[in-house]
Amino acid sequence: MFKKILIANRGEIALRIIRTCKEMGIKTVAVYSTADQNSLHVKFADEAVCIGPPPGRDSYLKIPSILAAAEITNAEAIHPGYGFLAENAEFSRICQEHDLKFIGPSPEMIEQMGDKATAKATMIKNNVPVVPGSEGIVTSIEEGKKIAKNIGFPVIIKASAGGGGRGMRVVQSEDKFEHAFKTCRNEAESAFNNPAVYIEKFVVNPRHIEIQIMGDQHGNVKHLGERECSLQRRHQKILEEAPSPVMTPEVREKMGQAAVNAGKAIDYEGAGTVEFIVDKDLNFYFMEMNTRIQVEHPVTEEITWCDLVEQQIRVAAGEEIEMKPLKMRGHAIECRINAEDPEHNFRPTAGEITSFNVPGGHSVRVDTHAYAGYRIPPNYDSMIAKLIVSAPTRPEAIKRMKRALQEFVVEGVKTTIPYHLQLMDDPNFQSGDFNTQYLEQHFKFKP
Amino acid sequence: MFKKILIANRGEIALRIIRTCKEMGIKTVAVYSTADQNSLHVKFADEAVCIGPPPGRDSYLKIPSILAAAEITNAEAIHPGYGFLAENAEFSRICQEHDLKFIGPSPEMIEQMGDKATAKATMIKNNVPVVPGSEGIVTSIEEGKKIAKNIGFPVIIKASAGGGGRGMRVVQSEDKFEHAFKTCRNEAESAFNNPAVYIEKFVVNPRHIEIQIMGDQHGNVKHLGERECSLQRRHQKILEEAPSPVMTPEVREKMGQAAVNAGKAIDYEGAGTVEFIVDKDLNFYFMEMNTRIQVEHPVTEEITWCDLVEQQIRVAAGEEIEMKPLKMRGHAIECRINAEDPEHNFRPTAGEITSFNVPGGHSVRVDTHAYAGYRIPPNYDSMIAKLIVSAPTRPEAIKRMKRALQEFVVEGVKTTIPYHLQLMDDPNFQSGDFNTQYLEQHFKFKP
Repeated sequence: MFKKILIANRGEIALRIIRTCKEMGIKTVAVYSTADQNSLHVKFADEAVCIGPPPGRDSYLKIPSILAAAEITNAEAIHPGYGFLAENAEFSRICQEHDLKFIGPSPEMIEQMGDKATAKATMIKNNVPVVPGSEGIVTSIEEGKKIAKNIGFPVIIKASAGGGGRGMRVVQSEDKFEHAFKTCRNEAESAFNNPAVYIEKFVVNPRHIEIQIMGDQHGNVKHLGERECSLQRRHQKILEEAPSPVMTPEVREKMGQAAVNAGKAIDYEGAGTVEFIVDKDLNFYFMEMNTRIQVEHPVTEEITWCDLVEQQIRVAAGEEIEMKPLKMRGHAIECRINAEDPEHNFRPTAGEITSFNVPGGHSVRVDTHAYAGYRIPPNYDSMIAKLIVSAPTRPEAIKRMKRALQEFVVEGVKTTIPYHLQLMDDPNFQSGDFNTQYLEQHFKFKP
Repeated sequence: MFKKILIANRGEIALRIIRTCKEMGIKTVAVYSTADQNSLHVKFADEAVCIGPPPGRDSYLKIPSILAAAEITNAEAIHPGYGFLAENAEFSRICQEHDLKFIGPSPEMIEQMGDKATAKATMIKNNVPVVPGSEGIVTSIEEGKKIAKNIGFPVIIKASAGGGGRGMRVVQSEDKFEHAFKTCRNEAESAFNNPAVYIEKFVVNPRHIEIQIMGDQHGNVKHLGERECSLQRRHQKILEEAPSPVMTPEVREKMGQAAVNAGKAIDYEGAGTVEFIVDKDLNFYFMEMNTRIQVEHPVTEEITWCDLVEQQIRVAAGEEIEMKPLKMRGHAIECRINAEDPEHNFRPTAGEITSFNVPGGHSVRVDTHAYAGYRIPPNYDSMIAKLIVSAPTRPEAIKRMKRALQEFVVEGVKTTIPYHLQLMDDPNFQSGDFNTQYLEQHFKFKP
C-alpha cells in the first residue's frame, strides 16, 4: 500500500480523500493555491504545499508545480479528485512517466472515453444501448441532414470533445439544421479546439441516471447500483439520490450489466460512472462515461456502505476488488449546498461565512471544507458543502433531509439551502415525478 | 400520533429528541433554564419556555413549572430524556393525572425497577441470572455476615435506592464487614433518604454489558442487542460500543432473552436498558434496569438502523412494535466529549467555546448542542458532544474514530478529545481486553 498520497485538488473533495487516507494510515500531501490557504483540506493534511495563485491554470491545473510538490514530499501516488486534472489524459501519462501512480484510469482509457464519438462507437461494439444517431463524426451538412431525417427530428448535435452540457444544440426541424450544424462546429472549434460533431436522436424530457462502476488491474469490473441525477439547473446537478425512485430490479440489472460491459470494453481501472439518459418507459441509452470519482459519490457510499475513495486507492495499489453481489440498504439523498443566491438567479456570493452550524444526528453526513470564519474565494465553483442523509425509505429520507436543511445555518453569504427546503416540499419531487427539465421549466422557487 | 411534544430536558438529548420529532412531523416545545437560553435545543424547537434559573431543582426538576409549560403550549406528551425527571415515578404519575402522556414507562414500572432490591427479587422470580447474594434487604449485621460467609468474600454492600455507582462498598474479608455495613447504611440514609442495603457477591474485574429493550402497550418486548460499556471513570461511562468485542451469538441470544424476560416481568413499555455484569467466562448477572433512553443509545441505532427515540414516541402513542428478528450491521463506537481537562484530573472547564469544528464524512455522527460562541454553563454535567462512528468491522471503526477525533476542534475550553485519541492507540482497547477497572487502574493518559 502507498505510504504517502498527494491530492491534486481543493475543497471538500480534497478533505474527503484525506479522511479516507487517514483511516487507511496513509500520509497525505495537500496542494493549495494562495486563495485556499485557510481551507480545511490544507489544515488536515499531513503536509501542504502552495502551488501558485488562482486561477486554476496557475495552480491546480499547473502540472509542473504539482509534480514538483509530489517530488519534494516523496509522494508515491496522486489522487486527482474531480474536475481540474481528473480527466486529463496527459496528466495521467506524465504521472506514469514520473513513476507516480495516478489514482484513476490510464491515459488510454481516459482518451477513449473523453472523445464522445469514439466512446459511442466503443459502446455500440460492446452491446451497450446508445441513442440512435450518426456512426461517429459527421463532417458534411448533407450527410447530417440525411441522418437526422432518418432517425427523425428533434435531433441533437453534439461536440465530440464536449461534455457536462457544453457544446450541444437541439434541432427541431429540417429547415433549422444547416444553421445549427455550422454554429455547433464553430463553437466546438473555439471551445475545445476540435470542430468534430456527431448527431443523435433528441430524447424528450429524459431522466439522467448513472451507474457507479469499479474496475481493477486484474480485469474485474463491478457496478454499485445507480444514482438518480435528473434534478439539474444549467446542466449542473443540484440534488442526487440513490436508488432512483423509478428504478426496478430488472432495469437495474440490465443497466448495471451495460455499465459493466462499458467498463470491460476498455479494461477499465478505478472508479467510473456510466451516464445514461432514460425515457419514460425506462429505455436507457449510453450518454457518456466519467473516468473519475463524482461529486455525488456519497449517496452510493451510504446505501452500499462501500468507501469508494478507499476502493480507488486499493485498486490503484494493485488489489483485486471483491466481486460480491450488490447489497443496498435504504435510500440516500445529497443536496449540494452552493454559495449562490436563489432569490437572484443563483448568482454566486463570495465572502466570509460568519456563522456555520452543520446539521448532525442520526444518518446525516456533511462533507465540507468550510467553517465559521472561512472566506469563500471568488475563484472557484460555488459549492461549499454536500449534505447527505440516508433512511430506510425515500419518504423518510426526504423528511430527514428537510430537518437537516433546517438545522444548517450559514450566515454571511447566501446559499441554496432555502431552495432545497422548498424542493423537499414539492409534490412532484416527493412522488419522484421529474426529469432533467423539471427544475428549470416547472419548479418555481418562491423567494 | 401526537401533534406536539414537550421535551423536559436540555442539551444534546433535547436536541436529539427534537430532530426525531421534526422528522415525524410533530411540533416541539423546549423548556430551558436561564443558563441555557443560548443552547441549540432552544433554537431548534418550535416553541421554547423558560422554566427558571439553575440549578436543576429550580427548573429542569421543577415539576409544576414543566406542567405549566406543557399546559400553556398545549403539548400532549412529555419526553423526559435521560437524567433529571426521566426515572422519577412521581413525575410519570403526575403526567398521567394531568392527561399528559409521559413518553416512558408507568410509575409502577419505574418504581419496580428503581428499588434495586425489589428489582432483583423480580429478576430471580423470572429466571434472569442475578449475582448470588441476599434475598432482598438485609437489616442486621449478623444476618449480613452469615450471608457474606455463605457466598464468599469479597462481597459488595449496596444501597437499595442507589444506582449509577453511588452507595456501594466492597468488603474483602469478614473483619471489615461490620464497619462497612454501618457506613453504607448511614450513607444510604443521608444520600437517598433510605437506609436499606443488600449484599452481593463481588464479581472481580467484570465487564459492564447492557441490552437495549423496547416494549409496547400490547405486551410485546424485544431486544436490540448489546452495548459494551466497560470503559468508565468514577462509574461514568466514557466510551461505549456495539456489539461488545467479547460477545458471541450464543451469549447474545441468552442475554437478550434474559433482558426480554426482565421486561416482560413488569409488562414494560418504552425503551429500557437491562445492565449486566459479565465475568471473564461470559457468565452474566442482572445489575439494574434503566427505564429511559440512555446517553449511549446511538451506537445501537447505528448498527440496527432503528431510531430509538422514534420507537419511544410510537410506543407511547399506542403503536405496536415490529417483532422482526434482530439484524445488526458493522460496529459502532461512541466517545463522550466532555469539557474536562484530562491533564488535571478531569476537572470541568466551563467557559466559552471560541472555535468549534465538528468532524464529518462517511459514517460519522455528531450529537451536540454546542457551537462556536456557545458558553458552557457551569451548572450541569460536562458532556458537550457525543461523537459516534460506524464501520463494517471494529478495527475500521477504531481507525475512523481516530481520524474523526483528529478533526474535532474545540477551542476555548479543554476537552477529553486528547484522552480519547490516546485510548484509540491503546493495545488493550484495540484487542478488546478491558473491564470496568481498566481505565482507572491500568490506562495511563500521557499529557
